[in-house]
Amino acid sequence: MDIARWKSGDEQAFVFPQSCGRRKGWVKYMKRRVVIIGGGAGGPSTAAEAGRRDPSLAITMIEKGEYISYAACPMPYYIGDVIKDEKKLIARTPEKFREGGVDVRTGVEAENVDLAAQVVTLVGGEALPFDVLVLATGTRPILPGIPGEDREGVFTLKQLPDAVGIKQFIRESRCRTAIIVGAGFIGMEMCEAFREAGVETTVVNRGSMPVPRWDPELGQLVVKSLLDHQIRMMADTTIQAIEKGETCRLRLITDQGKIEADVILLAIGVRPSVGLAGEMGLALGKTGAVAVDFSQKTSHPAVYAVGDCCEAYHRVSRRWVHIPLGDIANKQGRVAGCNIGGFPTIFPGIVGAQAFKLFDLEIAATGLDEREALAAGFHPVSNLVWGDVVPLSVPGTTRLGLKLIADEATGLFLGAQAIGPHGAVSRINTLSAALWSGLSIDEVAYLDLAYSPPFSRAWDLIHIAAQDLMKKMVRRPPR
Amino acid sequence: MDIARWKSGDEQAFVFPQSCGRRKGWVKYMKRRVVIIGGGAGGPSTAAEAGRRDPSLAITMIEKGEYISYAACPMPYYIGDVIKDEKKLIARTPEKFREGGVDVRTGVEAENVDLAAQVVTLVGGEALPFDVLVLATGTRPILPGIPGEDREGVFTLKQLPDAVGIKQFIRESRCRTAIIVGAGFIGMEMCEAFREAGVETTVVNRGSMPVPRWDPELGQLVVKSLLDHQIRMMADTTIQAIEKGETCRLRLITDQGKIEADVILLAIGVRPSVGLAGEMGLALGKTGAVAVDFSQKTSHPAVYAVGDCCEAYHRVSRRWVHIPLGDIANKQGRVAGCNIGGFPTIFPGIVGAQAFKLFDLEIAATGLDEREALAAGFHPVSNLVWGDVVPLSVPGTTRLGLKLIADEATGLFLGAQAIGPHGAVSRINTLSAALWSGLSIDEVAYLDLAYSPPFSRAWDLIHIAAQDLMKKMVRRPPR
Repeated sequence: MDIARWKSGDEQAFVFPQSCGRRKGWVKYMKRRVVIIGGGAGGPSTAAEAGRRDPSLAITMIEKGEYISYAACPMPYYIGDVIKDEKKLIARTPEKFREGGVDVRTGVEAENVDLAAQVVTLVGGEALPFDVLVLATGTRPILPGIPGEDREGVFTLKQLPDAVGIKQFIRESRCRTAIIVGAGFIGMEMCEAFREAGVETTVVNRGSMPVPRWDPELGQLVVKSLLDHQIRMMADTTIQAIEKGETCRLRLITDQGKIEADVILLAIGVRPSVGLAGEMGLALGKTGAVAVDFSQKTSHPAVYAVGDCCEAYHRVSRRWVHIPLGDIANKQGRVAGCNIGGFPTIFPGIVGAQAFKLFDLEIAATGLDEREALAAGFHPVSNLVWGDVVPLSVPGTTRLGLKLIADEATGLFLGAQAIGPHGAVSRINTLSAALWSGLSIDEVAYLDLAYSPPFSRAWDLIHIAAQDLMKKMVRRPPR
Repeated sequence: MDIARWKSGDEQAFVFPQSCGRRKGWVKYMKRRVVIIGGGAGGPSTAAEAGRRDPSLAITMIEKGEYISYAACPMPYYIGDVIKDEKKLIARTPEKFREGGVDVRTGVEAENVDLAAQVVTLVGGEALPFDVLVLATGTRPILPGIPGEDREGVFTLKQLPDAVGIKQFIRESRCRTAIIVGAGFIGMEMCEAFREAGVETTVVNRGSMPVPRWDPELGQLVVKSLLDHQIRMMADTTIQAIEKGETCRLRLITDQGKIEADVILLAIGVRPSVGLAGEMGLALGKTGAVAVDFSQKTSHPAVYAVGDCCEAYHRVSRRWVHIPLGDIANKQGRVAGCNIGGFPTIFPGIVGAQAFKLFDLEIAATGLDEREALAAGFHPVSNLVWGDVVPLSVPGTTRLGLKLIADEATGLFLGAQAIGPHGAVSRINTLSAALWSGLSIDEVAYLDLAYSPPFSRAWDLIHIAAQDLMKKMVRRPPR
């Protein structure tokens, strides 16, 4: 390609010779400036992909913390010491990024953004002009707003420094007891992590069952697993205050009584960090997260948003939702990076696939649960079947519970939940591909899956559940 | 429903009171007569489903052997003595069928069928009139046509009596050495079975690599696994005759020399059993198997065909194919049974999903391989990636090889192959759902899968392979 004809935004990536980037003058003049705010997962993905697609870009990524490009999802395994070193959570170091030409600046915070002038002003006054801005500001933990929630020994778990802090605190303060407030999947993973770290754990839950996304019949396995591993459960409990304890460091006051522990983790959810986006006047979605289109563009043409701070299109409910998960952030970052780097790409959306491990259980779900299906205007019918999934290769009982949900009006397959020692994630992934494609429950009932006796039965549990659900849906008008 | 208005073929299933069926006269007169020829897998599925859907049917199932309703796929595990008792392979006994009102007759063979008169004549002369006929005649093993292939100790493995015969022969004749002719998936499963039974095994293969459906790079793992388990391989070898042996019972003569063994298994493939169908003048497909439609109906409106004797629609090649597998037979049987019982149902086809276990390896594939893709007129491009699939939960190395194939012209995803100690089947099943739905490789590259560190990485190997393949396919015209 003739360099004289090259223009900013050209879809054909222009690869500079290595020596070229160091020359001043016209080369520098042509460079499009990309500023990325946030260095967790989505930001670094954007930076890496944009740089790969268009090495001529001048990319600056700022992060207010000290770590960038880390995987947040394995943090419970770091705290449980399955992963020894926090460095293992880091996908790409700042040095690695700098080698790739990305200017990474940690400990740097954006003060405000002037969209008209296309300049980010940093805390301290420095100005960063941009041609393209990427918001990857993530989420912040929801705090209950009770007295004492800021005491030493009370933690939330969102970013890598939180994980490092919790692990250090448990070790240095020799914590023997912990309270986890919240029984979502992070709370559950942290039960196992604390257990691994030798800490006696109590879960305090506002609702009656942990992980309410899963059917109560499946949830019973979660409860059993917690009890089997000496995790105490306090259900239907509202927290009121955190005080200094008597026998332990801290005391949690609840409407069900007082309970003491050396460390308290608040895991009651997260909110998108949209302060900057709001000030810039960017459109937010109904969920409160930054509204984006399929290219990850916000309402302003020069601004992209990726990861936990923005929404994603849900292919089943056909609404824009806010589901902050690391794999989604990675994908959105790559899509934004491709587009910024001149390769037209869309992020085709999500189906709500999710999994976590709790001791010996695989716990997975995808699509909509019944509440969400109703909210979207569907007519959910569901069933729940139990079966042995690996008849030969694993000795003993390997029961898997699988719940399927479909729309009675159309037969559209809407969602699935699975729990068992083996095969839950695998089946949820297969069903996620089915949801992605908008299959009907009739098609799910006859899906062609790889059958071999060591791995499954001729009728897999997926088929059995779907066939069974089909029968529930035959509501022909009387003749 | 008013019984006086009921007519044969009414879609509304009419449930007779239990006592009713024993009365003579008008009740018997109304019954539609269904005759099913073949009792392996598809026939019993048809019988069970038709009877469930319409208990008023008079169903007769004839089987020339002594066993009905058995699972053929686990037979290697029965021979390897992982499954001790052949009764465990039987899904439903004749007694159970008879309790359900199905007249099961074993040791009975059909001599011919008069389609005009709608009568099956049995060997011995008895006539079975029918309203609906179902062919479930299965396949028969291909014999190489060499001298001595009928010697004692030379076996094929297709039906349950074969498996019982092999197991008995190995035990009673104290076999120490075996030859398996053919290195398809049955040959591979039998390597493991003979090994489990303590028999030294040699595989004689006409081609250079076992299981040619899998890419040679993946096939190397199969070869390594065989060698690691002391299975000898003779590649590029043509068999010529079987003689009486000197040190062992039998001697196999090949173009690569002579080899002796106590038992020889011929596993070189199967052909559909279509003798009866041909005599009846039913249309056969290009594959030589019975041609059927989506309702499992043959070219004659009163005759259905199910299972290994008939074709199935391949959703990727969009051709009718003959892939004799137990899970397909079960599904086709259920579809035929639904239709016969008055519940309109279609068999939506297959995508070629297949798996087998070889010692510690999961070996799975789906869709088309490159040869099949070319034959269907696609423009296959492919890639093969290796990755760790379970970073946390399983100690040690768990490498998985995954090959993806797509059409360069359209981006249509065409097929996949996977081999590894863990996760091959699970990924092939997810990709089977993607093939089922006709997804493009771009969509596969962004599929929403349940991510959690104990089970996968944020970018699963599926994503990595598909993203990589996408890059190979960017062939834009020059500007």
